[in-house]
Amino acid sequence: MAAGGKRVSCGLDFVSPSDITNALQIATEAKYDFAAMPIAHPRHKRDFSGNSQARRLTAFTRADLILNSSDWSTLIVGKISPHIDLDHEDRLLRQESENMLEQELSFAGHLGLPAVLAPLRKNNTNFARVLHNKVLVSPSNQARYHVWLHLPMISPKTESSQFEREVKEEDTDDTWHWWNNFRSTANFEKKLSLALELTADLPDSVDIDRWLGEPIKCLVVPTHLFMTNKKGFPVLPKSHQVAIRQFLRQKTQILITGTQRHQHYKHYQQYMEHLWQVGYEADPVMQFAQGYEDFLQFPLQPLMDNLESQTYEVFEKDPVKYTEYQRAMYLAILDKVSLEDKDSKIITLMVVGAGRGPLVRAALAAAEKADRKIRVYAVEKNPNAIVTLQCLAEEEWGDQVTIVSCDMRDWDAPEKADILVSELLGSFGDNELSPECLDGAQKFLKDDGISIPSSYTSFLGPIQSSKLYNEVRSCRERDKPYYTSFEMSYVVHFRNRTELAEPQALFTFTHPNREMPIDNRRYEVRNFPIKCDSVLHGFAGYFETVLYKDVMLSINPATHSPGMFSWFPVLFPVQNPINLKKANNLEIHFWRCVNRTHVWYEWCVTKPLAGAIHNPLGRSHNIGL
Amino acid sequence: MAAGGKRVSCGLDFVSPSDITNALQIATEAKYDFAAMPIAHPRHKRDFSGNSQARRLTAFTRADLILNSSDWSTLIVGKISPHIDLDHEDRLLRQESENMLEQELSFAGHLGLPAVLAPLRKNNTNFARVLHNKVLVSPSNQARYHVWLHLPMISPKTESSQFEREVKEEDTDDTWHWWNNFRSTANFEKKLSLALELTADLPDSVDIDRWLGEPIKCLVVPTHLFMTNKKGFPVLPKSHQVAIRQFLRQKTQILITGTQRHQHYKHYQQYMEHLWQVGYEADPVMQFAQGYEDFLQFPLQPLMDNLESQTYEVFEKDPVKYTEYQRAMYLAILDKVSLEDKDSKIITLMVVGAGRGPLVRAALAAAEKADRKIRVYAVEKNPNAIVTLQCLAEEEWGDQVTIVSCDMRDWDAPEKADILVSELLGSFGDNELSPECLDGAQKFLKDDGISIPSSYTSFLGPIQSSKLYNEVRSCRERDKPYYTSFEMSYVVHFRNRTELAEPQALFTFTHPNREMPIDNRRYEVRNFPIKCDSVLHGFAGYFETVLYKDVMLSINPATHSPGMFSWFPVLFPVQNPINLKKANNLEIHFWRCVNRTHVWYEWCVTKPLAGAIHNPLGRSHNIGL
Repeated sequence: MAAGGKRVSCGLDFVSPSDITNALQIATEAKYDFAAMPIAHPRHKRDFSGNSQARRLTAFTRADLILNSSDWSTLIVGKISPHIDLDHEDRLLRQESENMLEQELSFAGHLGLPAVLAPLRKNNTNFARVLHNKVLVSPSNQARYHVWLHLPMISPKTESSQFEREVKEEDTDDTWHWWNNFRSTANFEKKLSLALELTADLPDSVDIDRWLGEPIKCLVVPTHLFMTNKKGFPVLPKSHQVAIRQFLRQKTQILITGTQRHQHYKHYQQYMEHLWQVGYEADPVMQFAQGYEDFLQFPLQPLMDNLESQTYEVFEKDPVKYTEYQRAMYLAILDKVSLEDKDSKIITLMVVGAGRGPLVRAALAAAEKADRKIRVYAVEKNPNAIVTLQCLAEEEWGDQVTIVSCDMRDWDAPEKADILVSELLGSFGDNELSPECLDGAQKFLKDDGISIPSSYTSFLGPIQSSKLYNEVRSCRERDKPYYTSFEMSYVVHFRNRTELAEPQALFTFTHPNREMPIDNRRYEVRNFPIKCDSVLHGFAGYFETVLYKDVMLSINPATHSPGMFSWFPVLFPVQNPINLKKANNLEIHFWRCVNRTHVWYEWCVTKPLAGAIHNPLGRSHNIGL
Repeated sequence: MAAGGKRVSCGLDFVSPSDITNALQIATEAKYDFAAMPIAHPRHKRDFSGNSQARRLTAFTRADLILNSSDWSTLIVGKISPHIDLDHEDRLLRQESENMLEQELSFAGHLGLPAVLAPLRKNNTNFARVLHNKVLVSPSNQARYHVWLHLPMISPKTESSQFEREVKEEDTDDTWHWWNNFRSTANFEKKLSLALELTADLPDSVDIDRWLGEPIKCLVVPTHLFMTNKKGFPVLPKSHQVAIRQFLRQKTQILITGTQRHQHYKHYQQYMEHLWQVGYEADPVMQFAQGYEDFLQFPLQPLMDNLESQTYEVFEKDPVKYTEYQRAMYLAILDKVSLEDKDSKIITLMVVGAGRGPLVRAALAAAEKADRKIRVYAVEKNPNAIVTLQCLAEEEWGDQVTIVSCDMRDWDAPEKADILVSELLGSFGDNELSPECLDGAQKFLKDDGISIPSSYTSFLGPIQSSKLYNEVRSCRERDKPYYTSFEMSYVVHFRNRTELAEPQALFTFTHPNREMPIDNRRYEVRNFPIKCDSVLHGFAGYFETVLYKDVMLSINPATHSPGMFSWFPVLFPVQNPINLKKANNLEIHFWRCVNRTHVWYEWCVTKPLAGAIHNPLGRSHNIGL
């Protein structure tokens, strides 16, 4: 039932199968990956009187012996009885519901089911409390199952009112608020996720985007939404196709529910597989990033640590980055040497932080294309990369390139450079300390010398993501305070998140920096107009850089360099999720702090509500100089 | 390079390959899984004068570009230069060694090598300190490689003295002491393991057993040990075959070293594969337990928790246990009903803790075989298992079996039993509280009634195992004191451990227990004569039970019921490893403690040195009544 590598995982829902083995056979023969079935046998009586001992009872459901345990634990999703209501106003009905839920969940655990499907109602606080208790981790008796809360995308009431053109603005008819109440009560517990049912009417794209930031494990698709095409096969309306593809990109599973309205159940599964394939094949970035989605990585600290061979190898393969660098160098070389000087003048180009030489290679190619003469210095502090550079110099480059095994900040250069080239940018621009490094290196750049890159700017935007919130929460290290993992930044290929407002530019650095004295501290305040009722979990960080003149690189979504994969965005979490209303003004203060040995960020939300400063004094995370 | 499921992982050692790509091709074409090669190119000069900057240098080794990073990180084991000696008495040579080691390890990290092979000398304290620093985990810069310390099974000195029949008893010529010094200094760090070289002479079996308790990642087999059989293929002497098979059982990898003395390198690999296959196929327990070796499980608490369907399913499959129970019941039924009473007398058999009914089934079969009449009560507290029992009663058993949904300690039985059958034993006999349960249930056993089992005894024996010590250490839970994980017992299928003395009987319980008042507390002292110089990491626990008369079940190694897999042994750790000398007397005190709500064990080593009490008051672990 785990979402397979390159296929969609698709299940078939059975309302009340008379024979489980037979139902499972129908589902697997039609190529479904799992089947959903009631846990309790609807025709069996149930007794909670408590005096069952020594009386002859009949079982409340079928015996576990019908299937072997590996089938139960991989192929069956159990459904909670629909009449169970733990928030009913009648105390007796509520208590009886609690007993029945206890019995059904206990049996689900006994069978080792991977997941349980439970309908979510508007009022659900007591339900949330009980489910949270049930899935809580205890070392001796851990529930294996996840609970999928089943919920329509639009509530039946809203749907009918839309039909009558009487749209009401009440929160309580927005099913997202039902869910938000539930998961807030259940403390964002990650074993409690969503099974969202597609409705005939679809909400606005802003609302669909918001669902995409929620932990949706399963998209429920009723058969009555399907139309029939000319050949008699089921197809969905265009708008539903678009919506489903968005969910499939997140590896959401599908559950087909409702009566068979076409020739065969297998055609629904085939159609879903088709939607997935079309989307997957059209998206090379999705293929490249497979396995990294929503996975938190610590940012590299290439200044303090030495990169490894494999890291160099991955980054050298970027199809865009070095082409753009070469274009920037080409333009800079042409600006430095006029046509008449082309045979007499030799300019000096220094690559600081040369790694295993991709920028050296690009510089030589740029000079050749420009038909100009250059002398190259390749400065690198990592002694392991120096081994590669020395071998390349001996075997390929010859005397045109001088290898310097040294930290650029300490180097005593024998001459000054016309062009200083570096690739020191992190996912948030300055976060790998490019400003401090280049400030140190510019002492050997001529007064009229060119720095590539010439400037860079970080960008920040608020996001919602239960998934990432849970990932950060579970990063907690032993012997560290509970807030530590919320006061760090992480490199992440985002998937299961919603952007709550457009990202905005934050800090800009320009090189060479002729300011006296140079001050690389920054402090900015930004205000974001919020698109919809939502929950803030943190901020996504990006950057744009001008390499030279019009040559740019960007990972800011609005201007992202097509096909470039060298940088994933960065995440700055907030410790306590903050509830936001549509049109709220969200204000954030952001600092870049510098002392003699370290650089760090601090951040703080001040509107609509003031929250605590994150990472004061760099107590949880800082970057070593 | 990970040890594959059903194959031996075998590497080929190259002393100084002139072409790495070519060497790797030779190894892979001969079906080797990895190749060992020097990290530093022996012919390249190395400079540690510190004034390298701006001078033209040649590289100290080959460039990383020769192989792609996935080959480096899966196929190559790097060898540290043999002349490196960090414990040399000459300060300058020592310092130069430290520089060289730093350079080679840094390059190994850069390449992403999975492992590094380093020769271990007699004096190795400084070496241990430096390697321990190098592999220490830091979140930003974690070495990927493990270090395999290369050591002969018998030191060259001992080997020659054996040859001259002048055996010396000096510790320092025993290579195990070299290793023990190293790993004690390095605090048993699990990234520092052993590559043990097979020598022409083999040590005593006690000493080989001791190596089997060490973290041996690789067994180095020199080609000069091989003889040639009639067909011209390489074979090893019988004694070496036996030794290698013991290591292969532990999934140790093999490294073939030395010149090719037979037709082709591939024949050594084929021979190792053959040794592995023969051993594997002959051992069904090894096949069953695959994946559980040395894996710590928390003992079940079936009294507090309900077992799951899958757990029942696994245990019901034991080919021995229920056959023996049936034989015991058959004998008991015959003893209760004489031949002349066989048609008139109906006896009552109660199964307490019936689960999903395997003992009920066995009871019915025993009665049928004995040709006697019985009435069966099946008492079970788990409501999920009751579902199964009720279905079985309705469909198969009919009125002969009464299902009772109740905790046996609370049941108000309508009549008394002639035979009371239970299967409440844990891996340490009484550790799942069989005594307390049966004491409660015996109130509905007739005065002359039979309990099956009629008695059980726990066994205890001292063991050495770096592997298990590290597993326990890494079990530490957040927010719990450091000693907690050492004060629990674990269920483990032992593999990488050495028994330091024969296990001895500890606590015995007999049923029915007519003592007044019943006291299930126990306190015993045991003394173990130690077989060899060694390190104590904990105690292995087992049990034997008499079901009825001569029908027994046992997991005590000396008397283990052949083919029975329902119980793995139990491990009681000690917090600080204790160094033992051959013929030492190891004394342990062991308590079983009981209060109103819980049962727990305490234990304490008192000789040769007194250590702290483990688990006082059951502070770290107890079993709920």
